[in-house]
Amino acid sequence: MQEHLKKVSAAIDKLLAADRYPQTIRPDYLRAAVLDYPQNGGKRLRPAILIWCCRLLGGRESAALYPAAAAEVCHNWTLVHDDIIDQDTTRRNRPTCHVALAGGSRSRFGLAAAEADRTGRDFAILTGDIQQGWANDLLLRATEHGVPAKVTVGVMRRFQELANRELICGEALDVEFSLRMLESIGLDEVREMLRGKTGALLRFCAEAGAMIALETDDPETPEVRKLGEFALAAGNAFQLRDDYLGIFGNFEMLGKSLGGDLREGKATILLLSTLQMASAADRNRLLRMLGHREYTPHDLETVRRIMVDSGAAGVLEREEAELADRAKSILKEFPANVYRKCLLELVDYLIEREK
Amino acid sequence: MQEHLKKVSAAIDKLLAADRYPQTIRPDYLRAAVLDYPQNGGKRLRPAILIWCCRLLGGRESAALYPAAAAEVCHNWTLVHDDIIDQDTTRRNRPTCHVALAGGSRSRFGLAAAEADRTGRDFAILTGDIQQGWANDLLLRATEHGVPAKVTVGVMRRFQELANRELICGEALDVEFSLRMLESIGLDEVREMLRGKTGALLRFCAEAGAMIALETDDPETPEVRKLGEFALAAGNAFQLRDDYLGIFGNFEMLGKSLGGDLREGKATILLLSTLQMASAADRNRLLRMLGHREYTPHDLETVRRIMVDSGAAGVLEREEAELADRAKSILKEFPANVYRKCLLELVDYLIEREK
Repeated sequence: MQEHLKKVSAAIDKLLAADRYPQTIRPDYLRAAVLDYPQNGGKRLRPAILIWCCRLLGGRESAALYPAAAAEVCHNWTLVHDDIIDQDTTRRNRPTCHVALAGGSRSRFGLAAAEADRTGRDFAILTGDIQQGWANDLLLRATEHGVPAKVTVGVMRRFQELANRELICGEALDVEFSLRMLESIGLDEVREMLRGKTGALLRFCAEAGAMIALETDDPETPEVRKLGEFALAAGNAFQLRDDYLGIFGNFEMLGKSLGGDLREGKATILLLSTLQMASAADRNRLLRMLGHREYTPHDLETVRRIMVDSGAAGVLEREEAELADRAKSILKEFPANVYRKCLLELVDYLIEREK
Repeated sequence: MQEHLKKVSAAIDKLLAADRYPQTIRPDYLRAAVLDYPQNGGKRLRPAILIWCCRLLGGRESAALYPAAAAEVCHNWTLVHDDIIDQDTTRRNRPTCHVALAGGSRSRFGLAAAEADRTGRDFAILTGDIQQGWANDLLLRATEHGVPAKVTVGVMRRFQELANRELICGEALDVEFSLRMLESIGLDEVREMLRGKTGALLRFCAEAGAMIALETDDPETPEVRKLGEFALAAGNAFQLRDDYLGIFGNFEMLGKSLGGDLREGKATILLLSTLQMASAADRNRLLRMLGHREYTPHDLETVRRIMVDSGAAGVLEREEAELADRAKSILKEFPANVYRKCLLELVDYLIEREK
């Protein structure tokens, strides 16, 4: 799988570097900002899912490449706006988009710090807006590479439904949870949030790959639905794993600070389940431990002990394993080929990122 | 024209009120925010241009209606993000999107003022994002109303080029101008900014209407290009008129505060031309008058006198008249029908808004 992933990554890098759409963006620093995240991108997992689902069903890579690039740019657009909202300062070991634009504005226009921050944020809003347009344009370009216009329109519609509406609703819920009392947040709501924020784009990738391979504009086509469910299950397993590693992971190895999720009092399924399942004493102990500025290894041991004793950690691990199994058994309904193998390995990769 | 405009407005109102796309948006206050500007919209001039250009060339209204609604939602999306950037508090006599969302967050989550402001802004970023998805979805729906998929793809591509990239670049330049010394801003740059910020979406509307009528995906089709040029000329005339009224208008009648453009030191073509053409003494006098907190009628008289004496006001009026004439003479190359009459009257309407 890793070898195939490298090939996808190289193809996406090449396509994005040569693409016309961003070339006429003015001013120059806005163009640089639009290119920044997509060109210094992560693992290109979303393009890989789209391309492999297309190939799994016998579609051509050339037909899937532009939509795959669209999914990657879409992912990066949401990160740019997310980073503004979360006030994050670094991503992938580099300044976030709004921070970089603030720095540029400061020197370029001689602004004081506060005004530069505001200007950086303003330009970053526009950066994400134009990236959304770029993602749509890339998707439309599929028609130049053998995808019938009717299919492109069908894929575009799913893009607006999943990778815009559901995804953004997930982000909005996430913002809302950070403002609400932890006790008022239901597990169902958190699942809905995750389905939008992480699941929707993964699902789009799988569905789009299948629609392109089958040359259909109907997302209700059985193979399309099934692969969409595969991606959703894999995404949910990934998210549960992420929550688990946020407490039980090797923080040094993950490059994360100790107990970051506890500091933020993040409404994860793990935390909410523990609060529901723990004894009254443990529940109160855990609630008192949220929102501290720092955590000692001993604090973390206490939290871990409560999560394990309550049974919540075990429930979560089982749920994660079940989701991964479901994702894999959906895949196994499809013909055995190298792309099915890649997708099966991807499921394992998503839930074993610690190693 | 006014009667036809009312019909367009009613059709757009009806379509937007019944549309499915926003109905599943969660949380509820995000859905309300997404619907707010589009449902309490302005004059629906953009949909009118799209529909009338389509009808001018013999196209059906039903085919143009969804794209017309898309243009309107697109316009409103850009206003939502623009209002955040400009820190505006009211639009159409109601609170701006981020201000309304801040108020809601304050009572809903019991936030202090500063945090409520930030939260309102965050939700407004997401509101605009989802409106962009809605606009794209509306445009794609044209395929359900008799527009061939190939044509829809062609129109969608122009949408990403004009009503996203060019428009957003115009907005970015506008932000930049507010940070630069007035003397460093060239007239050509201001024209480029206006072409993007006001012209691009109007041009899209005219081109899209023509492409739908002619069932072509090629924006280089002569009729499409010509109508695009008509809209650009009309938009530029409108913008020059706007600048002119910002100084010479009847402020009471326009509902604007006296000398708002002077207070902001806004880089209008009128102001920059005056600074280039005025005597050294007048030039310095004018520069000293910018950025005050209030203006007396006597101040305004001085500014008007300088703008007239320098010859800049006259040059601007002539340019505006020439643009309006160009827009009209392009229209006169098309067959005389009721829609041509509407579009001709629209040009006059755009430059005679004071009466």
